[in-house]
Amino acid sequence: MIDLSSLEKIKEIDALVSGWIKDLAAQTKKERAQHALKVSNKDGDRRNLVTNIDRDNQKVLIDKISSLDANARFVCEEAGEARAQSMDGQVWFIDPIDGTLNFVLENRDYAIMMALYEDGEPVLGWICDVPAGRLFHGGPRTGVYENEHLLEKISDKALSDSVVIVSGRRLVVGEKPYSALAQRACAFRVLGSAGISFTRLFVGSAQAYLSKLSPWDLAAGRALAEGLGYQVKNLDGTRPNMLLSNSVLIATSSIHREVVKMVKD
Amino acid sequence: MIDLSSLEKIKEIDALVSGWIKDLAAQTKKERAQHALKVSNKDGDRRNLVTNIDRDNQKVLIDKISSLDANARFVCEEAGEARAQSMDGQVWFIDPIDGTLNFVLENRDYAIMMALYEDGEPVLGWICDVPAGRLFHGGPRTGVYENEHLLEKISDKALSDSVVIVSGRRLVVGEKPYSALAQRACAFRVLGSAGISFTRLFVGSAQAYLSKLSPWDLAAGRALAEGLGYQVKNLDGTRPNMLLSNSVLIATSSIHREVVKMVKD
Repeated sequence: MIDLSSLEKIKEIDALVSGWIKDLAAQTKKERAQHALKVSNKDGDRRNLVTNIDRDNQKVLIDKISSLDANARFVCEEAGEARAQSMDGQVWFIDPIDGTLNFVLENRDYAIMMALYEDGEPVLGWICDVPAGRLFHGGPRTGVYENEHLLEKISDKALSDSVVIVSGRRLVVGEKPYSALAQRACAFRVLGSAGISFTRLFVGSAQAYLSKLSPWDLAAGRALAEGLGYQVKNLDGTRPNMLLSNSVLIATSSIHREVVKMVKD
Repeated sequence: MIDLSSLEKIKEIDALVSGWIKDLAAQTKKERAQHALKVSNKDGDRRNLVTNIDRDNQKVLIDKISSLDANARFVCEEAGEARAQSMDGQVWFIDPIDGTLNFVLENRDYAIMMALYEDGEPVLGWICDVPAGRLFHGGPRTGVYENEHLLEKISDKALSDSVVIVSGRRLVVGEKPYSALAQRACAFRVLGSAGISFTRLFVGSAQAYLSKLSPWDLAAGRALAEGLGYQVKNLDGTRPNMLLSNSVLIATSSIHREVVKMVKD
């Protein structure tokens, strides 16, 4: 167990892990530029990619965390690590490259993400926009930082004045309420990475994000979004189950109320 | 008339105008940070915005061009300037802020765009991603540059391996063939600015862009895209009319063939 008993201790962990992630981001960017990537498909899905760098990054982060806590429990995107079966105690979430398709095809808009939860509640999250060199870190107790800069809490905003980000795949197959949300907002965006979509919320470029997210897609973003005053809930108003995939809406309070009503009607 | 009779003369104009746009971009970024924007709606459309900075930038650019050529003819986005009625001779296109909604709501992903055409053919284009400080400039004769860096011509790529960018508004109302294109591509993006969408094509982060574009949305991007080897055509295979709006596909040759077939079927 890691000692999270005081704000000071939590800030120490934030600083330590932020250093690891900055180093790993610099190395990832360098390797992306130098080497031919080894790309494979997962689950027979041509859009679900994994590279050698996803796997290497995950191993580096697991080793670092295990050096702090030999009994650390994990929920990781890539195979090779036993998955935590309950949210009791401390759980680490790792997405070693979020937006792997962007990483491979676009060489922009991908992220390294990590989070630490205790007894089901977010303590700290880290999202590093690797190509842009921007690390978002912190949580509900510490506040949320972009690199060294403390971010302001959000103000409430209605859907018709807002920019929303949606999963393109779910929008285009007609899943509800993606199209209605996109049409009622002032504008909508499709970006292809959960981590990068979250960062747009943190800096106030967007006010809502709707997608079906795996635990490692959601964990860091939830910790940071809740730290800034966003509501992070399933479409039926329940809280996300951090061991399963969730159709989750991260949004201002006003947008949450409007979308919950939209789904009911 | 501006002397465009040699490559050297064209490069001189490129360098001169690039300097104007860099200065204007720096000023625009500063004004966006300092002042409250004065935002109005155009045509009673809540999503069609104009600000004091759009109007000021257009005036600055018209004055600069007019100092080079007192008889210069223009096609500009904002009101206040007589619009060229034919593409004979030289025509300047100005979009003083492309992506005004992004400019106002997101404070990212907006551009200043200009182009110079002669007898209907693109000579030079400029797209400046203002927040990122990236100026794309050049044309079919000079080659295309990102700041000082000459960009490589594109290689052909099929739709199923490509990232495509589409107009979100046209996708979400079910206009054809937006949804089919988005579904057949490897991934699709919605970014909210024509200029920024074009820049993704230039650096190889995307391979196709489909939207209905006004002349000032298209002119610079067409000059640069054709300079890099992209096909710029209407969905029926004809060339765009530079005095009207066009449903235009900017894409690799393979994607163009596939989409033209898709539209016919």
